[in-house]
Amino acid sequence: MHPFQTYCREELGRMKAEGRYRSFAALNKSRGEFPRYTDAQGRRITVWSSNDYLGLGGSDELAEAAIAAVRAHGVGSGGTRNISGNTPVHEALERELASLHGKPAALVFTSGYVANQAALGTILASMGGNWHVFSDAKNHNSMIAGMKNARAKTVFRHNDPAHLDALLAAAEPGVNKLVAFESVYSMDGDIAPLAELADICRKHGALSYLDEVHAVGMYGTTGAGVAERDGVADRIDIIQGTLAKAFGCHGGYVAAGAEVIDYLRSAAAGFIFTTSLPPALAAAGLASVRHVRQATGLRARHAERAARLKDAFRAVGVEPMPSASHIVPVLVGDAALCREVSRLLLEEHGLYVTAINYPTVPRGTERLRFTPTPRHGDAEITEAAQALAAVLRQVGLLRSADAA
Amino acid sequence: MHPFQTYCREELGRMKAEGRYRSFAALNKSRGEFPRYTDAQGRRITVWSSNDYLGLGGSDELAEAAIAAVRAHGVGSGGTRNISGNTPVHEALERELASLHGKPAALVFTSGYVANQAALGTILASMGGNWHVFSDAKNHNSMIAGMKNARAKTVFRHNDPAHLDALLAAAEPGVNKLVAFESVYSMDGDIAPLAELADICRKHGALSYLDEVHAVGMYGTTGAGVAERDGVADRIDIIQGTLAKAFGCHGGYVAAGAEVIDYLRSAAAGFIFTTSLPPALAAAGLASVRHVRQATGLRARHAERAARLKDAFRAVGVEPMPSASHIVPVLVGDAALCREVSRLLLEEHGLYVTAINYPTVPRGTERLRFTPTPRHGDAEITEAAQALAAVLRQVGLLRSADAA
Ligand SMILES: Cc1ncc(COP(=O)(O)O)c(C=O)c1O
Ligand SMILES: Cc1ncc(COP(=O)(O)O)c(C=O)c1O
Repeated sequence: MHPFQTYCREELGRMKAEGRYRSFAALNKSRGEFPRYTDAQGRRITVWSSNDYLGLGGSDELAEAAIAAVRAHGVGSGGTRNISGNTPVHEALERELASLHGKPAALVFTSGYVANQAALGTILASMGGNWHVFSDAKNHNSMIAGMKNARAKTVFRHNDPAHLDALLAAAEPGVNKLVAFESVYSMDGDIAPLAELADICRKHGALSYLDEVHAVGMYGTTGAGVAERDGVADRIDIIQGTLAKAFGCHGGYVAAGAEVIDYLRSAAAGFIFTTSLPPALAAAGLASVRHVRQATGLRARHAERAARLKDAFRAVGVEPMPSASHIVPVLVGDAALCREVSRLLLEEHGLYVTAINYPTVPRGTERLRFTPTPRHGDAEITEAAQALAAVLRQVGLLRSADAA
Repeated sequence: MHPFQTYCREELGRMKAEGRYRSFAALNKSRGEFPRYTDAQGRRITVWSSNDYLGLGGSDELAEAAIAAVRAHGVGSGGTRNISGNTPVHEALERELASLHGKPAALVFTSGYVANQAALGTILASMGGNWHVFSDAKNHNSMIAGMKNARAKTVFRHNDPAHLDALLAAAEPGVNKLVAFESVYSMDGDIAPLAELADICRKHGALSYLDEVHAVGMYGTTGAGVAERDGVADRIDIIQGTLAKAFGCHGGYVAAGAEVIDYLRSAAAGFIFTTSLPPALAAAGLASVRHVRQATGLRARHAERAARLKDAFRAVGVEPMPSASHIVPVLVGDAALCREVSRLLLEEHGLYVTAINYPTVPRGTERLRFTPTPRHGDAEITEAAQALAAVLRQVGLLRSADAA
């Protein structure tokens, strides 16, 4: 046996011993019934941990757009964007995304992960690599991957503009600066002070790079994200997003100035050397963005549902972690216990809520992460709150007296 | 303006001056008519540069599988594999791919690019990073991306087992070794001596990592690739492939031992932190692999078409670059001229053949790359050969006397 196999065996053993070995539940997403899925045994369960935040993935609009495009164009695109894999729909989708964010241009990647990794990696390798990047302490792994080979990298305290300001002021002059941050942080649900961050970037001549993956579709008058809501989109240089969460589809993108986008299109290896998104996904993505831009009622209902879920948790004595968004995390604080709570919710109450463990969140902050959608009704919210309280009591994390 | 914008403008200007600025033709893939597409003006053109090598992307099998899955499950999966994005179809697809390659397990990624980058990156970061990687000189960008942060990296001469042997023999003892190579090299169409490479890896205790992206579906009795054709699959440790080329779909994968796969599943950031493939793509991929495994007639026809195209080119005096596979490259040797030949073929003859320029191939080896499929008929082959000869004559690359 190669020593690597032995290594794998030992590492897996270690993960199991620490309670952080992951088994994926096999869930069947049933289109008309979202957020009700069926599990491997055919049992109906309610999913509380989907990033199909608005429940659009199963909507007739998206399904019809995808089906029509499969009928017309087939499944795979059959090529990279440069080698016969560029269709009018890919181009229309990029125009629509640019327009959504009020930017001159946009570029679609095969995922939000690839968008971050490829865009940041390409920018930081440009200009002779003469860059110093400043990264929020809670930035997503995909951004960290894109910054991995940066010549200089400094982490600033999470959502702390004053700290960023001080670090930028102390940075070596003559080096190009880029600041990378998110709007909605998906594991805590807190929201960055975008206006302050944007102003500080401007003040120090730093390029600003904003990941709106967990905000697009849901914040701002037309769903362009927190930058739209806060009126700062024109002060952010590069906005990154995904079609795979609130838009209910798949693929990622960046929106920015025309020359920046054209340069990324021409130079980003993670964009160039890979098969383009299937035409049916581009078509469904386009249909979704168009639909979402005017779906203000859906956004209002989404926000209302999130507030309602937080209230329902408090009413049964469970204080959710502080969250300024639609994401409702509940702290457990231990990997094995977190998995156990999740297992009990699934097996005894038919509720699917993912246990979020290391490496997704720091050790000691293991949590359940609830993501209510416009399609979670009052009865489902009450059911979830009661089941959660019962399970937390069962494992000793909630005393009966805690209930309000 | 930020200096980065100026930089982008200047770089784009440089690309244009060197004739290597890329404009993507917008092509409409018409399902029932492959390889006939329509261009932006609605004109019908014949595509000679699709990696939908068997023309399966538009087949009824795949379209029906995708449509049924969209109807049942909607479009996006709505989560990472760990966060509600794991379906029974993803698991079935992984079992099917493992079985195809005769390996205990397989893992699906969002693309072949991500599979290479994430799998290699994760392996080379394991065991304390104590790795020395040996990479074929013509390896694809996605593998190079995965090896970027390797502690030690040596490039061996393309398809040269003796060179690899010597390098491995000279390597520092006590360091873990991995050798990365492809089977079919997509820009030249040559095929690696897999048996020799596998033996050398074994001899030196090196892990072997094989990219079969341009071979799966097309080589071997059941389409498992060149490793199957040459009877060496069991001597290769890790086999990587894509669903986006001959399988006509989208997504990438690796197949290997159970513990290696379970470790990658548990540790590869590019697998963990991204939305899983849409269920409809997993379903279409599964349908495709099942179909392709028994499609021996289609593989035979594909090989016959490639031979026929090479003969047709020779008959008009055009010697294709040496190729042992279905890929038929024709050397032009200059970026601007290559683009011009491609443009003339499209505009004057209605044939789409991508100009392959730097950085995809080295400067001075710019080429046209023809990929005949089972759906290119005799008339289309004759038409392509005659049009190519006419255009090459027009730009002065072929003298009339060259014609046979
Ligand atoms: C902040 C953030 N950025 C990017 C991504 C990657 O997006 P995608 O799922 O489209 O790859 C994710 C999660 O998946 C994320 O949480
Ligand atoms: C050798 C090789 N490996 C991997 C890839 C990436 O596969 P995918 O298109 O599925 O990302 C490609 C081309 O795209 C390739 O040519």
